[in-house]
Amino acid sequence: MHKPVSVAVVGLGYWGPNIVRNLQELPEAEVVAVCDMRESALAKTAQRYPSVKQLRSFAQVLEDDSIEAVAIATPVSTHFELASAALAAGKHVFVEKPLAASAEEALSLLGLADESDRVLMPGHTFLYSPPVNAVRDIIQNGDLGEIYFISTSRVNLGLHQSDVSVAWDLGPHDFSILRYWLEETPHYVSTMSRSCVLPGIPDVAFINLEFPSGAIAHAELAWLAPSKLRRTTVVGSQKMVVYDDTSNEPVRIFDTGVDLPDPETFGEYRLSYRTGEIVSPYVKPAEPLYLELQDFCASVREGSVPRSSSLLGYEVVRMIEAVEESINSGGARVAIDQLGAIPRAA
Amino acid sequence: MHKPVSVAVVGLGYWGPNIVRNLQELPEAEVVAVCDMRESALAKTAQRYPSVKQLRSFAQVLEDDSIEAVAIATPVSTHFELASAALAAGKHVFVEKPLAASAEEALSLLGLADESDRVLMPGHTFLYSPPVNAVRDIIQNGDLGEIYFISTSRVNLGLHQSDVSVAWDLGPHDFSILRYWLEETPHYVSTMSRSCVLPGIPDVAFINLEFPSGAIAHAELAWLAPSKLRRTTVVGSQKMVVYDDTSNEPVRIFDTGVDLPDPETFGEYRLSYRTGEIVSPYVKPAEPLYLELQDFCASVREGSVPRSSSLLGYEVVRMIEAVEESINSGGARVAIDQLGAIPRAA
Amino acid sequence: MHKPVSVAVVGLGYWGPNIVRNLQELPEAEVVAVCDMRESALAKTAQRYPSVKQLRSFAQVLEDDSIEAVAIATPVSTHFELASAALAAGKHVFVEKPLAASAEEALSLLGLADESDRVLMPGHTFLYSPPVNAVRDIIQNGDLGEIYFISTSRVNLGLHQSDVSVAWDLGPHDFSILRYWLEETPHYVSTMSRSCVLPGIPDVAFINLEFPSGAIAHAELAWLAPSKLRRTTVVGSQKMVVYDDTSNEPVRIFDTGVDLPDPETFGEYRLSYRTGEIVSPYVKPAEPLYLELQDFCASVREGSVPRSSSLLGYEVVRMIEAVEESINSGGARVAIDQLGAIPRAA
Amino acid sequence: MHKPVSVAVVGLGYWGPNIVRNLQELPEAEVVAVCDMRESALAKTAQRYPSVKQLRSFAQVLEDDSIEAVAIATPVSTHFELASAALAAGKHVFVEKPLAASAEEALSLLGLADESDRVLMPGHTFLYSPPVNAVRDIIQNGDLGEIYFISTSRVNLGLHQSDVSVAWDLGPHDFSILRYWLEETPHYVSTMSRSCVLPGIPDVAFINLEFPSGAIAHAELAWLAPSKLRRTTVVGSQKMVVYDDTSNEPVRIFDTGVDLPDPETFGEYRLSYRTGEIVSPYVKPAEPLYLELQDFCASVREGSVPRSSSLLGYEVVRMIEAVEESINSGGARVAIDQLGAIPRAA
Repeated sequence: MHKPVSVAVVGLGYWGPNIVRNLQELPEAEVVAVCDMRESALAKTAQRYPSVKQLRSFAQVLEDDSIEAVAIATPVSTHFELASAALAAGKHVFVEKPLAASAEEALSLLGLADESDRVLMPGHTFLYSPPVNAVRDIIQNGDLGEIYFISTSRVNLGLHQSDVSVAWDLGPHDFSILRYWLEETPHYVSTMSRSCVLPGIPDVAFINLEFPSGAIAHAELAWLAPSKLRRTTVVGSQKMVVYDDTSNEPVRIFDTGVDLPDPETFGEYRLSYRTGEIVSPYVKPAEPLYLELQDFCASVREGSVPRSSSLLGYEVVRMIEAVEESINSGGARVAIDQLGAIPRAA
Repeated sequence: MHKPVSVAVVGLGYWGPNIVRNLQELPEAEVVAVCDMRESALAKTAQRYPSVKQLRSFAQVLEDDSIEAVAIATPVSTHFELASAALAAGKHVFVEKPLAASAEEALSLLGLADESDRVLMPGHTFLYSPPVNAVRDIIQNGDLGEIYFISTSRVNLGLHQSDVSVAWDLGPHDFSILRYWLEETPHYVSTMSRSCVLPGIPDVAFINLEFPSGAIAHAELAWLAPSKLRRTTVVGSQKMVVYDDTSNEPVRIFDTGVDLPDPETFGEYRLSYRTGEIVSPYVKPAEPLYLELQDFCASVREGSVPRSSSLLGYEVVRMIEAVEESINSGGARVAIDQLGAIPRAA
Repeated sequence: MHKPVSVAVVGLGYWGPNIVRNLQELPEAEVVAVCDMRESALAKTAQRYPSVKQLRSFAQVLEDDSIEAVAIATPVSTHFELASAALAAGKHVFVEKPLAASAEEALSLLGLADESDRVLMPGHTFLYSPPVNAVRDIIQNGDLGEIYFISTSRVNLGLHQSDVSVAWDLGPHDFSILRYWLEETPHYVSTMSRSCVLPGIPDVAFINLEFPSGAIAHAELAWLAPSKLRRTTVVGSQKMVVYDDTSNEPVRIFDTGVDLPDPETFGEYRLSYRTGEIVSPYVKPAEPLYLELQDFCASVREGSVPRSSSLLGYEVVRMIEAVEESINSGGARVAIDQLGAIPRAA
Repeated sequence: MHKPVSVAVVGLGYWGPNIVRNLQELPEAEVVAVCDMRESALAKTAQRYPSVKQLRSFAQVLEDDSIEAVAIATPVSTHFELASAALAAGKHVFVEKPLAASAEEALSLLGLADESDRVLMPGHTFLYSPPVNAVRDIIQNGDLGEIYFISTSRVNLGLHQSDVSVAWDLGPHDFSILRYWLEETPHYVSTMSRSCVLPGIPDVAFINLEFPSGAIAHAELAWLAPSKLRRTTVVGSQKMVVYDDTSNEPVRIFDTGVDLPDPETFGEYRLSYRTGEIVSPYVKPAEPLYLELQDFCASVREGSVPRSSSLLGYEVVRMIEAVEESINSGGARVAIDQLGAIPRAA
């Protein structure tokens, strides 16, 4: 077994403490320091983990040679500055999703990681969720046939962000899952949205995504909803799947479809509809964040590309940017270039 | 009480027999004839209603002076020809939705009805559905506050049409309901769709609708789905409503919302989320088609404008046309003119 | 193919017209007459089926030699008199469940059928329900392992009977299903009940049934409930099944159980719980009453024993009688003799 | 504000650490010591709460004068010995449910508490659950009218106990809730059960409870079930309530019932069924264990009788004993005496 990766966790807001807890439980990692400007946040951690260093400035993190890697859980607007400084200081970097506040920033980070030969990994936690992987397996092994379309709803009441739209807040979840399932980036997106509560902050968005393969996807994202909904339907030519993260049966496979025999004489089509059994496979529960941080440690020690790769993180940021561009231009259909030469570090 | 309206039902396919049955039960109407080209269809009706005339040609309907009104339940492509001939022959006309195959045709019919001073009524049955009216009442009386957005899913497996898209097939339901609830026609629509099974026949559509008031609506329509879904969410500034036609509790009112106090110093917003009780009002069941045909008879005898008015039918056709235009132009945002002078007959 | 069985339907209340309709659609049968004392009931049928004889007295049915069989859908209290007279007149008899108002009456009918060599068949319609048969198949093929217990709820609001308890009204459904699934009659029953609304008419009953195999079953029956419930859970040593007649997925199979390894030293037990996939098999819909009447015709023409046999009908009446005896003795545990020599006609 | 109650938590198995955590968060209490025979259990607590004394023997707890109260979370068989010793040593006692392993033991404890003038409180946590209290309020304010019957299911897969029946394990939950809601103890109970997996350990029980007021209740308890169920229906003469602890809407009130007008001439009854709106009141979440321990502290400092009183705990044990007696006598109906003189300490 490798020596544990020594990590500093930067940012102890909502998510940071979860990272600390999971790293503590992980044999492959060791939390050597936490960093936050707020005394109160540090004090809380100190009480739980008295042996962990409490650092008030990020410079201290950078200077500390005992720290091999940083896990950044600060607001999105700071990701670029912190991550690039950490890479420049020779640290491996795990950064919460989205990877950066713009595609330009994200691309810079990929370049820096490449130059410094360090790991750069965005925290797209859903890629480590057991139901998401169960659905990916079903798609990959061809059970669904051709993917016709995907429709997803991710809505609940709150929490409005004061600086970014619902697309920046909730979009990374669905965009990363779609990229992971379909292994392609949409070439067109368009979005209808509205800023219902706060002026200039879209809190509901209906997002269309068109993929090169012909698959289309629709994502409804909202901070305003009568009840929490996490429901994704994948319709294939052979079978269909419903993935619902709030259900006791998160994955349901429907042996349902439509068969198209050869057109008969006179060009008439006769379709036959097939309704078969419905199966809820058993999906063994596991904490995605634990698996994600394990993957980070493996990529640090073994040089492997993490499932939540920097390339995927970059693509997600490009998708969000295109969505924002569509919103800002009244719902226009916005093209996304397909990447040609892919940065090596991805 | 008025003398019953004498009606001929034209077209005995899937829906026509339901019209016959409801007219038979209605004291305000009398079915004097049925008309279909197919002997087998006529024979079936003859067995049940031996006293009703069996007519093989529409000309016989037009010539028969004992017939005051016709109810047309034939394919959409024939609506214009049959309805215009019936109006020209001095008959009142009830025609299944959509009113006609194009806005141009629909407008002609409105003109003909106006000239001949006859009733022209499209059969938007959902306008007579008790849950739809319960929701309308809640919207109209202001309980929901400002309508922020509406999201609706109308999906199931089948039945593919061989000549029209899913928008022409399922769209009239949602478009008529939205028009009825919001009392306005969208000024922009855009649609992402795909022809998954039959080439050139879109069988899934994600439709955006933007209304002059600021309200936006999204409709997901599909003939491909793992299970039947009929779910509409109306999000208002005060409360929210879920309308589900497949549920034992078709209307649920959520006392849920977000309150925005005056911005505090330094421009910071502090939102408070409100989660209150959920009420499923008792909605007395009734057969919408019965109520619809009753409204038709009243408009014939009393000159009233039916709830499912020809104007509403015209607007629905304009919405479908705009959706089709968006589909045909790759998802572009298509404008719909707001009607100025409204044809009198509406 | 055999000549159709000529049937007279006796009793045109709630259920009788359904029997008439299904017999009419059945190639194996012909409705030659209907019989009811009420003119209004006859008139309604006459309108629909003008060629069917309208008889006002049961004596006319008995005397009519063109009638081979009678289907009796009158109140339970009249079953014995009508069925025994019909058997005596040489008619085959289909009689709505329960077979008779007492075990003594039921046994007499079995004897009469035996003597006259005529078919006597009670209408336990659930034995022809596709989901009930799907569950029976799963039980019979051993998939569930040993049946540990069955728990069932059959509750809704209304309809109170003015002369019999909820056990006589709803009990036949569950008792016939349990007899059909388990192929045994309980040897003990006990019941806690209450007459909530009408004095002396129990409208809620909690019924315990103990079977010779060791299986136990519990049935909750009520005319008072906030919502309709039709839910039966079958727990076996290998798998478990939920049967819900109100659901789109009426049968769900849970690969769930508990495994008991050999006791370890010191007599400690270590159980391991197994949670596997859940399967909703596709159950093809069919009208149970149609299949039931088809079975009746087959038994008339071919001498086969119908699935809903007179013996099963007799056993169901014995179960209800024992339940009533328990109710009348304050909830005592009442024994039911296991039948030795079974009447031949069963 | 009072000085915090200094508490020692005895038993650090499954539940003990929850008690420690809640007491730590409670301003009214202070955990001064934990006690367990197992080093590993103590070590785990020591890591989290380094300032709390780690005691290996209960004798040390008794001798420690800085400990005012003990919270006992050990196996039921030890409750009596530990609680009586603690009371004898002048400590206040909180003891996990059930209060003791027999009614005799429980009564002794009540006597000891009375003599020593110390608080004795069993931990019937559900009495502090917000939905349970919402239902109690509805019952107490008369909204439901007369309580006709209550039907409850508490089933899931596992966890079999090796020494006690499912009635001892799950019964205290429902019995304490019923006692709290109805404010009476049943005078008769009967139970059908089966030991499906382990010989002599009933793992499914159907329990009947008859109350002096006329109300009846049925509880289905099982460690064998395809899915977790926590569903209680309360049927009253005016309204009905469903309480489901696993639902987002844990309390639902149905304005549903049956109205019985005066009997008409000829003794005929005409019932009318009422189906009205369904309301899910908002129930503010709170941790019941926190509220429960707060109540314990209040009773220690202020001398108040806790909601989960020793008398209620005693009654619950009497109910379980009667259920066990019924099980052991093959399902007989077992009487429970109504308490006359109630021990003062309750």
